[in-house]
Amino acid sequence: MTIDASHDPALQSWVESANAADTDFPIQNLPFGRFRPAGHDEWRIGVAIGDQVLDLRATGLTDHTDMNRLMALAPDERRALRRSLSAGLQWGSAQEKAWRAALFVASSVELGLPCRIGDYTDFYVGIHHATTVGTLFRPDNPLLPNYKWVPIGYHGRASTILASGQPFTRPRGQLKAADAAPRLALTQRLDFELELGLFIGRGNRLGEAIPITSAEEHLFGIALFNDWSARDMQAWEYQPLGPFLSKNFASTVSPWIVTMEALAPFRRPFVRPEGDPQPLPYLDSEANRHAGAIDIELEVRLQSRAMRESGIPAHCISRSNFADAAYWTAAQLVAHHTVNGCALTSGDLFGSGTLSGPRPDQAGSLLELTQAGKQTITLPGGEVRSFLEDGDSIALVGNCSRAGFRRIGFGRCEATVEPSPAMG
Amino acid sequence: MTIDASHDPALQSWVESANAADTDFPIQNLPFGRFRPAGHDEWRIGVAIGDQVLDLRATGLTDHTDMNRLMALAPDERRALRRSLSAGLQWGSAQEKAWRAALFVASSVELGLPCRIGDYTDFYVGIHHATTVGTLFRPDNPLLPNYKWVPIGYHGRASTILASGQPFTRPRGQLKAADAAPRLALTQRLDFELELGLFIGRGNRLGEAIPITSAEEHLFGIALFNDWSARDMQAWEYQPLGPFLSKNFASTVSPWIVTMEALAPFRRPFVRPEGDPQPLPYLDSEANRHAGAIDIELEVRLQSRAMRESGIPAHCISRSNFADAAYWTAAQLVAHHTVNGCALTSGDLFGSGTLSGPRPDQAGSLLELTQAGKQTITLPGGEVRSFLEDGDSIALVGNCSRAGFRRIGFGRCEATVEPSPAMG
Repeated sequence: MTIDASHDPALQSWVESANAADTDFPIQNLPFGRFRPAGHDEWRIGVAIGDQVLDLRATGLTDHTDMNRLMALAPDERRALRRSLSAGLQWGSAQEKAWRAALFVASSVELGLPCRIGDYTDFYVGIHHATTVGTLFRPDNPLLPNYKWVPIGYHGRASTILASGQPFTRPRGQLKAADAAPRLALTQRLDFELELGLFIGRGNRLGEAIPITSAEEHLFGIALFNDWSARDMQAWEYQPLGPFLSKNFASTVSPWIVTMEALAPFRRPFVRPEGDPQPLPYLDSEANRHAGAIDIELEVRLQSRAMRESGIPAHCISRSNFADAAYWTAAQLVAHHTVNGCALTSGDLFGSGTLSGPRPDQAGSLLELTQAGKQTITLPGGEVRSFLEDGDSIALVGNCSRAGFRRIGFGRCEATVEPSPAMG
Repeated sequence: MTIDASHDPALQSWVESANAADTDFPIQNLPFGRFRPAGHDEWRIGVAIGDQVLDLRATGLTDHTDMNRLMALAPDERRALRRSLSAGLQWGSAQEKAWRAALFVASSVELGLPCRIGDYTDFYVGIHHATTVGTLFRPDNPLLPNYKWVPIGYHGRASTILASGQPFTRPRGQLKAADAAPRLALTQRLDFELELGLFIGRGNRLGEAIPITSAEEHLFGIALFNDWSARDMQAWEYQPLGPFLSKNFASTVSPWIVTMEALAPFRRPFVRPEGDPQPLPYLDSEANRHAGAIDIELEVRLQSRAMRESGIPAHCISRSNFADAAYWTAAQLVAHHTVNGCALTSGDLFGSGTLSGPRPDQAGSLLELTQAGKQTITLPGGEVRSFLEDGDSIALVGNCSRAGFRRIGFGRCEATVEPSPAMG
């Protein structure tokens, strides 16, 4: 990925909040999402800048409001759009006066799903997560023999992917205790999963694989993603075809897609641990080895209802990093998903899988943090948790930083667990 | 389900081909699909009648061309539409003159996917299939302990579901022989799966389960469905999260959705084998026990390229029946899928899973018919098959018959395997 003038850390914007040191959205970021002002039904394409949202069509840089169409732009066109946005938002830009009329205060508008999600695939790139969870579900066989060869993934449900902030109710399903018959009950082991969501830009035609050398041309960008999970339902239902109702009741995605262009300064070499098999040729390239990983710091924050009511801020329960957690790169996922000719479409979403770091306190789920409920974590205020309680909210946050560059952030991916209505 | 005057076997249509004894589409059927005449881009809603397609909007019975919107009609409205279609197409109807102008010769128009498919779930209701395949993949553990409690299902890929007649290419993927490292190669074990596709009509709201007592109100109807599978890829990739690239390269659906109303005369009691556990209450109802099963005769026909070129007709390689093959009913699938609050949407597709009958010659896949390639089947003309070869076409057909009623059919679900282009 090319680092160009749009990443210059000296760039300042006439949107003053974008120049604050702690903003997620300086002029070096420019993520895309969908918003609508109060009283309007139709979604518009927005660009986050400081504490404002820029209405893209109102700038004249596009003539439509279809985010999926924008995402399907050719990479050159995307890069040109980024340069135009960067130039127009810079301090001293001739567009300032016209574009001021295209700004909305972010807190005053509704932020929706960033695009229409056609198909959603969840991968499993977190090797520390796969190993720890494998130990819990299959003690004698934690990491299966295919893991280091195949970027394991499976299809998920698109209709229940929710915008950040949208609550969902505790699901019920079949639970089975060791010595009892299964029964229908509310999940007692509700969990989050710290993931990233990779959004597809340009699609491919059915039957035409995307080679790894052009895989990143098909990636539009990355958001935060929480794949809520009911562990007790999962344990009983998942064999032989994989998780189903334990996952498809809700997933939450953050409103802003940070583009691959914005992430260019934060790329890292992608190195396999010594002794591991080399990737098959269709999953290997020099560019992928040189800069396939992305350095994204991630954090999980929990706030219970009691904490909220007492004014206690959300408590960090885990910190991780995409580059340390992932055994496969974004480019490898695109190449693998299409090697059989599978057609991807603009707006498709890849979940990364749970991004647990190597240390126990870097785990991306309560299943790991509490060793399947055998331990508890203590919250400020004294409450303890093994799994999520009604009223708990989970917020994922993320950011990229590197000496010589402006820090960029991902915003928030947050939702609250609501109690289930009485069973019918 | 109510049997009303629209099922009267004495009813004749002014569309003469609909009165032929061997038509799939007599006036007692009236399935819905999407078609477009040559030179037109937009899909229209059609009703199959004999060898003709009736343009629904041109009859004045709807004012739009959106099949998904039609499918979302309330059940009373759907039934009223069926009655109007039946009356208008009857011999002596006052509509004959006007509606003749709304007819197209079926062979002259393009038949597409019957609707936009939002989310696609594949179930696994075929207990004989699950047992046989379980024996091949897990000899010591063929039918897992959850099978008779949980209607096992998993999410599939919607973007690669193809209209009948659309070819696809042999996929490549990772294959692994027992004592060798995995390699990328074209599948050597390409298979079909004989399934039915259940289409959702009205959806439900996130968080609101559909009780089994109203589950069928949310089903629009049933089509034929072929879930093409690459068995060698499947064996290597499917643990622990289920099949992925071995399935998502292509699935084929037939053009016509036979409505639940049309199927009313062919319902059967749904009886669990003695000694099996009773379904949990959310999967049980008197109506489901009384008439949850549907008597649909199914058949698989294979025609190789050589047979096609020699004029040898497609050869029947298996016969089965939905009612004999399925351990779970359509209503149970809807109730199970939503018990956790998962939102279904009009146009969602449920694959039934492979519908193998109890006898070996009733198997719904080559995996079963050839015992994972250990045996071969011989085709007319002398060719043998263990799995599918390039140029082979598979056609699924189905029909319902019962003394005192007109036979109704499902049309054809057909596609041909094309050779893969040279590997890039």
